[in-house]
Amino acid sequence: MASKAIAIVAGVGPGTGAAVARRFAAAYPVALLARNPENYESLVQEINKNGGKAIGISTDVSSQESVKNAFGKIEQEFNGAPIAAAVFNASGRFVRKPLLDMTVEDLQVGWEVSVRGAFIFSQATLPGLLKYAEDGHAKYPPTLIFTGATASIKANAQMSSFASAKFAMRALSTSIAKEFAPQGVHVAHAIIDGVIDIPRTKEWLKDMPPEAKIGADDIAETYWNLHTQSKRCFTNEVDIRPMLEKW
Amino acid sequence: MASKAIAIVAGVGPGTGAAVARRFAAAYPVALLARNPENYESLVQEINKNGGKAIGISTDVSSQESVKNAFGKIEQEFNGAPIAAAVFNASGRFVRKPLLDMTVEDLQVGWEVSVRGAFIFSQATLPGLLKYAEDGHAKYPPTLIFTGATASIKANAQMSSFASAKFAMRALSTSIAKEFAPQGVHVAHAIIDGVIDIPRTKEWLKDMPPEAKIGADDIAETYWNLHTQSKRCFTNEVDIRPMLEKW
Amino acid sequence: MASKAIAIVAGVGPGTGAAVARRFAAAYPVALLARNPENYESLVQEINKNGGKAIGISTDVSSQESVKNAFGKIEQEFNGAPIAAAVFNASGRFVRKPLLDMTVEDLQVGWEVSVRGAFIFSQATLPGLLKYAEDGHAKYPPTLIFTGATASIKANAQMSSFASAKFAMRALSTSIAKEFAPQGVHVAHAIIDGVIDIPRTKEWLKDMPPEAKIGADDIAETYWNLHTQSKRCFTNEVDIRPMLEKW
Amino acid sequence: MASKAIAIVAGVGPGTGAAVARRFAAAYPVALLARNPENYESLVQEINKNGGKAIGISTDVSSQESVKNAFGKIEQEFNGAPIAAAVFNASGRFVRKPLLDMTVEDLQVGWEVSVRGAFIFSQATLPGLLKYAEDGHAKYPPTLIFTGATASIKANAQMSSFASAKFAMRALSTSIAKEFAPQGVHVAHAIIDGVIDIPRTKEWLKDMPPEAKIGADDIAETYWNLHTQSKRCFTNEVDIRPMLEKW
Repeated sequence: MASKAIAIVAGVGPGTGAAVARRFAAAYPVALLARNPENYESLVQEINKNGGKAIGISTDVSSQESVKNAFGKIEQEFNGAPIAAAVFNASGRFVRKPLLDMTVEDLQVGWEVSVRGAFIFSQATLPGLLKYAEDGHAKYPPTLIFTGATASIKANAQMSSFASAKFAMRALSTSIAKEFAPQGVHVAHAIIDGVIDIPRTKEWLKDMPPEAKIGADDIAETYWNLHTQSKRCFTNEVDIRPMLEKW
Repeated sequence: MASKAIAIVAGVGPGTGAAVARRFAAAYPVALLARNPENYESLVQEINKNGGKAIGISTDVSSQESVKNAFGKIEQEFNGAPIAAAVFNASGRFVRKPLLDMTVEDLQVGWEVSVRGAFIFSQATLPGLLKYAEDGHAKYPPTLIFTGATASIKANAQMSSFASAKFAMRALSTSIAKEFAPQGVHVAHAIIDGVIDIPRTKEWLKDMPPEAKIGADDIAETYWNLHTQSKRCFTNEVDIRPMLEKW
Repeated sequence: MASKAIAIVAGVGPGTGAAVARRFAAAYPVALLARNPENYESLVQEINKNGGKAIGISTDVSSQESVKNAFGKIEQEFNGAPIAAAVFNASGRFVRKPLLDMTVEDLQVGWEVSVRGAFIFSQATLPGLLKYAEDGHAKYPPTLIFTGATASIKANAQMSSFASAKFAMRALSTSIAKEFAPQGVHVAHAIIDGVIDIPRTKEWLKDMPPEAKIGADDIAETYWNLHTQSKRCFTNEVDIRPMLEKW
Repeated sequence: MASKAIAIVAGVGPGTGAAVARRFAAAYPVALLARNPENYESLVQEINKNGGKAIGISTDVSSQESVKNAFGKIEQEFNGAPIAAAVFNASGRFVRKPLLDMTVEDLQVGWEVSVRGAFIFSQATLPGLLKYAEDGHAKYPPTLIFTGATASIKANAQMSSFASAKFAMRALSTSIAKEFAPQGVHVAHAIIDGVIDIPRTKEWLKDMPPEAKIGADDIAETYWNLHTQSKRCFTNEVDIRPMLEKW
């Protein structure tokens, strides 16, 4: 008998990643990847305590070795289960610098996580997503979602590291969407155009009402809604902003 | 006591409009507008029979007079109820011709419905949408959705009538989104990039599996999901295509 | 013997239109169209005095009748000469208003000039452009250029009239470009993203250096450079901004 | 006395790079960079024989060390001359593969040249470009041009290496354009949307007329025209296609 399909979230932190993990954990056992175990430990406990099933694996998504190791554990833990949903939410170190002050390393850190990491994660999850696409009992098409940003479509001064990486990730998402849609895998890219309301941004926009920031739970709900779209209605890109955002 | 919020759908035909009407009728009383009463009569009966509440009004959305008359009836019928959702799904006569064979009338028919109609409909619904935005009991932010097409972002040869109108409607949607978001109205534009599976397209792509066409019910579900987004997570544009679409 | 090819500029005012007229008059006899003869009279004199050849015709480009009349005069004056270049630089009355304060007329004024006018002008000039495309002695491919604006790609609040018209004109330009390129007509759209330095904008940005505004002569030079591109190198869209523009 | 300004072209091969080198050599001494000296040797001879001044330097633009070495030679040869124009025309190994067949190396080769290389080249040339911007005798604003491709704006299936790199390079170009325009440096990105007519593509489209391919000399002319734009008229992006291109 086939194992129950799982969901995998890469880049689990205190914001979007955790919210997405909780949302998908309501439907699927989840594997949560983050470099730092502190980012998933309490969340894994919370999900397991609340009747869900979660495991956390310390993973550097920009490293093939690390991802290979993580997926070995997932394979073992979930007995080769198909993947119903995979969310790539990781982001590398953010660099904002005058071009002439940047090092090649500054440029590359954006790419390593957002592009190489997204690529490695895609390669690791697509076989499981394709397996789910062939599963006659799948409730929803398997879904691979990438978290983008304003910089995915807008490259401002001093943002060449982040923007070049996010532009590239968007291209990767579209290329994969076109290649795998005919096999039933739904790939979507989300342009998160605003400040997400997470502990790290607590002091930002603090004179503004709550509607000046994006709710992490709300992003998670939008991702869930993308997942539930049928094969006859794939959305490949959404933008997301809070009602008070200027754009 | 405030009247229960309603939903209004303009451009109700046998496809997307009807599906959207059914979906929103599950939550709200609905007013359905179409030029030809045949397009809504059986649907109104169906919704009312199934425990919902629907009225249909013969309306030419490109005419201020006709829309004014329709909204007078809606006002009266629903006792000045706020508007929870308004969907503009109307499209004018489709023209595909070599440029030198076109008349000014050929160019204008696209604009009259898709732009002037969308504008008149927006003006007619925004007061009710704003009223709902101020309603402390509103479950979801009031939502105004425009149905676009591939031609909203791609202008092919011989498509100047349709594409210029759809490009313009997209601009209208964005402009309204930016003006009214700060007051809590969620405006979204949907790029329907593929053939919708409706009676009129029955013979199209008929050697292909069902996943070569977009399901009208699936579009309706996506519209509903846009409507349920919170004020901290407005999506202003989605694309929609079937899994077998080439793009 | 074939008549010498001409250039036609619609929307000749004291800024871009006049600069374009002067630039193209250095190579071709020019016909200048503007609603108000004051806009071309001294320019026509200037060109004719300086050894060029120019005529001015009072024309409302949004009116088929008026354009037909103008092209009748051009035909007669230039003896059915082919058209080497046609530049559509007209713009309707600019409206910036809250959506709920707008009239249908406010919406339509944008469309009437920028879309219907551009369409009528295209239909009037394409036969002459095609004639030039077949001319074995043509130095450069016949060129049809549309002047767009920031609002051609960005629809801000309260800008629905201007932006919907400019988005639509951009679609028209692309559609015509795709239809007529295979016959050798080069169609280009220019996104003028900044304030043009003309008498009317004298007081704008006046604490800034000259590089905060776009030079009308510089736009003309860019249009000329578009015209001189070969059949093996058509640029269909350029953006133009002054060096101090924020974008 | 200031040395005469120079132009630098990276990615000199038998196509665009050589044509650009010839075009700019008509106005400036040129330094030509290519990994393989065969790509510039005869061209350097040709330019020097025809009254121009050229040097060639074997350079791997993806290597900081190699670029540093090359610019040391340029500095020495041209006595610290300011840079009037710098053209980045290099492209890495092209990979077109199903995603699951790709290696991380396959993904990275695109980035290494198109993004890291473009970044290193920008850092190496910007000081000389800025020096020229401050030169009161400069005829044209200093110009930095990046050669993009269809894949800069369109990410097709199996194209994730090339498209992600080209999307990223476009972001880099825009970010640099915004940072350095206020200091007078003109940065432009060219979307080459079609097959360039070079020895390597001789057999492609060979049943089509010459207008089915882009002329390398024509690209060079367009780059030259970008260079000659004034500070009051910077074009930051052009698309380029042959008249028979489908798009």
